[in-house]
Amino acid sequence: MRFKVKIINISTGSVPVVVLNRKDCAEMDLHLNERVKITNPKNNLSIIAAVDFYDKLFPKDTAALMSEVSDALKITEGQYIVLSREESPIALRYIKEKLTGKELNSEKINTIIQSVVEGRLTDIDLTYFVSSCYIHGLTNKEIVSLTKSIVHTGEMLNLKSHPGEHIYDKHCVGGLAGNRTTMLVIPIIAAYGLKIPKTSSRAITSPAGTADTMEVLAEVCLDTKKLEQVVKKTNACIIWGGALNLAPADDKIIRIEHPLSIDTDGLMMASILAKKLSVGSTDILIDIPYGEYAKVKTKSRAKKLRKMFIKIGRILGMKIKVIITDGSEPIGNGVGPLLEAIDVLKVLRNDADAPLDLKNKTLLMSAELIDMHIHNIKKSRKIVKELLESGKAYHKFMDIIDAQGRKKLPELAKFTRTVFSPRSGIVTNINNNDITRLARFCGAPKTKEAGVYMHKKVKNKVSFGDPLITFYSNNQESLDYAVEYFKNSTAYIIVK
Amino acid sequence: MRFKVKIINISTGSVPVVVLNRKDCAEMDLHLNERVKITNPKNNLSIIAAVDFYDKLFPKDTAALMSEVSDALKITEGQYIVLSREESPIALRYIKEKLTGKELNSEKINTIIQSVVEGRLTDIDLTYFVSSCYIHGLTNKEIVSLTKSIVHTGEMLNLKSHPGEHIYDKHCVGGLAGNRTTMLVIPIIAAYGLKIPKTSSRAITSPAGTADTMEVLAEVCLDTKKLEQVVKKTNACIIWGGALNLAPADDKIIRIEHPLSIDTDGLMMASILAKKLSVGSTDILIDIPYGEYAKVKTKSRAKKLRKMFIKIGRILGMKIKVIITDGSEPIGNGVGPLLEAIDVLKVLRNDADAPLDLKNKTLLMSAELIDMHIHNIKKSRKIVKELLESGKAYHKFMDIIDAQGRKKLPELAKFTRTVFSPRSGIVTNINNNDITRLARFCGAPKTKEAGVYMHKKVKNKVSFGDPLITFYSNNQESLDYAVEYFKNSTAYIIVK
Repeated sequence: MRFKVKIINISTGSVPVVVLNRKDCAEMDLHLNERVKITNPKNNLSIIAAVDFYDKLFPKDTAALMSEVSDALKITEGQYIVLSREESPIALRYIKEKLTGKELNSEKINTIIQSVVEGRLTDIDLTYFVSSCYIHGLTNKEIVSLTKSIVHTGEMLNLKSHPGEHIYDKHCVGGLAGNRTTMLVIPIIAAYGLKIPKTSSRAITSPAGTADTMEVLAEVCLDTKKLEQVVKKTNACIIWGGALNLAPADDKIIRIEHPLSIDTDGLMMASILAKKLSVGSTDILIDIPYGEYAKVKTKSRAKKLRKMFIKIGRILGMKIKVIITDGSEPIGNGVGPLLEAIDVLKVLRNDADAPLDLKNKTLLMSAELIDMHIHNIKKSRKIVKELLESGKAYHKFMDIIDAQGRKKLPELAKFTRTVFSPRSGIVTNINNNDITRLARFCGAPKTKEAGVYMHKKVKNKVSFGDPLITFYSNNQESLDYAVEYFKNSTAYIIVK
Repeated sequence: MRFKVKIINISTGSVPVVVLNRKDCAEMDLHLNERVKITNPKNNLSIIAAVDFYDKLFPKDTAALMSEVSDALKITEGQYIVLSREESPIALRYIKEKLTGKELNSEKINTIIQSVVEGRLTDIDLTYFVSSCYIHGLTNKEIVSLTKSIVHTGEMLNLKSHPGEHIYDKHCVGGLAGNRTTMLVIPIIAAYGLKIPKTSSRAITSPAGTADTMEVLAEVCLDTKKLEQVVKKTNACIIWGGALNLAPADDKIIRIEHPLSIDTDGLMMASILAKKLSVGSTDILIDIPYGEYAKVKTKSRAKKLRKMFIKIGRILGMKIKVIITDGSEPIGNGVGPLLEAIDVLKVLRNDADAPLDLKNKTLLMSAELIDMHIHNIKKSRKIVKELLESGKAYHKFMDIIDAQGRKKLPELAKFTRTVFSPRSGIVTNINNNDITRLARFCGAPKTKEAGVYMHKKVKNKVSFGDPLITFYSNNQESLDYAVEYFKNSTAYIIVK
């Protein structure tokens, strides 16, 4: 059937949508969300879209195209499209199989992921897939297939100078505020001479992702060509993965997990390993902090994940080492992009007030990584300490920043307030979720110079009147709200 | 934050949507699909909507409202709305509990269903709920809570003349083409003197729902007042349930099940029983046809469902009788609204060529229903036979049609074609799914006068050249396509 094109510049962000008159739908027996194939007869470009209805506004025989659709068809308003019914994608049959608890072979998983990337699945379809994976779990075979499919539906980088070269990488399973080890481990490893290109993510629900924090100091949106130059020059990079077309299916799956904030072990594993595979990593250190406020709550789950990571990595041809660390409180003192960047710089410059927990965690992780190369943990520890304390890591970091494109360090946010301890005692608990929330109330991660600074950490002694926490915000009302929230919270527990 | 209103007359059909500029979203730290509360400051009306982005077209500080939103706020273009972040509905927490396999109490289920009716859940949220119910199943307690919630979030009819009056009802679990027993059983039971108001559905994927077929003969979109009049006058009605606000949550849940065509026993049960409860039914006969092409594939599943129906019905205070019937082939000869209506009239008029299978099934079901009243199946069978063969049921049906609003019977579709048997033998199988597809290719259910007529049924002898099937369509191309499809299909299997 032929329709006159009306363009509505709305991006649905998920499956492409075409809006038709309700009468036209009735005549074609099309239901809401049913899939149709839309073709531009002038250039034969076509796209699969989901049907939506409208009652008023546009005349009959008009198809209102969302911008994804009009862009894909290279069509302008007033031209004509041809619309035909599209059978449900075969991926739906496989999703239904998974829903009933069957194991999917690699071909079926590939069909699903291909459909995801092509935007042929609606949110409903994809949610069935994600919830099936969540409830039934994924076998190792399935995780491997999934990882490979996610990699192959996107771009792959080749950063090796010669075929057998090892490429190092690290990943933290996350959930802790201030955990900015990436920006310290990468320059240390690169300063030692190993290649370690790192793609990081931005914050979704946290007050700062590594990409947000690095962006305070340097450009992080690099294209493939620029990325290759940076790695060639410095052995490393710390960039935002989202700027490249690596593992594009992954973001669409994560978007579905977000509303219920569920974590599906198998999907998480595939998501992490796909990103590593797509940059060509061969030797990977994975940090799993566990604790009440971390993504992984218990040591036993951390151990289970460790086993899975190592096993699946082996099948995929990657050497994976997993460390399980203390995730009971935020890492470092600052929370928010600029405050965290300052913590990182303090550690690299060996400042007297550098956060010790961040430094120790950095040394631990860097040594484990170098040990993967020289197989001597004692020696590795020595090397790492020397690289950090000599300033070699600091200089490597400056090289990386210059290569990516240095930025001028901004001032901290203009409104600040410090809350002092109402009693003397020992800090026995800091609620990571409250700290996260407070930093976001102050404006992080959007406002890079906003956030909170923790003067005291767990096990620290405090006297009455000692500064506990300082808030930074560019908005007076937000600051007031954060301070009020803090006073009524149990963000800090101080016991006599 | 204040936004100038731009109205886009698009109905999303699910959760209300507000479209904002991407920059505004970034400033407010709003993500795709996040929920916001939108208030019209002039009248204090407010609504919860999901956020969508756009890049171009509208200026910054503009909120484009889909028509559900502007209607709910009683707002016009150019006015201002106030937008604020809305915490995720608490229903999400309960959905997550169900996802992890926990049993939900009645309060939690009620919160979920309330949120469904208020449009506070996105498709993603609702799909998590449906898939959890599918995979983990629902306990009897949960099904009971769900049924009550679905009833209480909609309208309830009171059709009783006195408090203790019994109200009869019937339901078929479905899947078979041509299964129009409702239009026969209802007049028989009403002619006997029992009250039996029946709400039916339209076709979703079938070539005709009971409401579509009845609509050939009479009005089926009745409001509550008119419905009460019809039932008072005739003891019965056969109407489209969708015209009333009964069990509104149900349709939204069914919409989610549709893309993967999954059937969740517990949801199906709640959906059926909620519709019965909302019209006040007390004594219900449920028909579960089983067979390769029916909704229920095996006798053992049919038996399992029978047990569940009876048990849950008892808890809800309804007397339920379940019959398990042969669902191996379509019922009657005609498939498509008008062709099925003709079959019904033939049975009621005791025509010589009335489809015997439809008549026998009608007699069986009607006798079981009357037996629920007089507890004597032998006598019930006699009564039912007499009511049908004497023409009393026919006259009752005419009364119901007149009360609802009689329509002029249309002519059958103008293009027809008959396919003749290529061999002699016995029909051993008729593929219900192919028959369904063929009738839809011809234009049913949209074109009421389109469909197929089966001259032969399973176990019938056929000679070479006997007519097998006749196609009716108003579109010559559709007819050709259907005939071609039939010839290449295994819709009929004839064995020597």
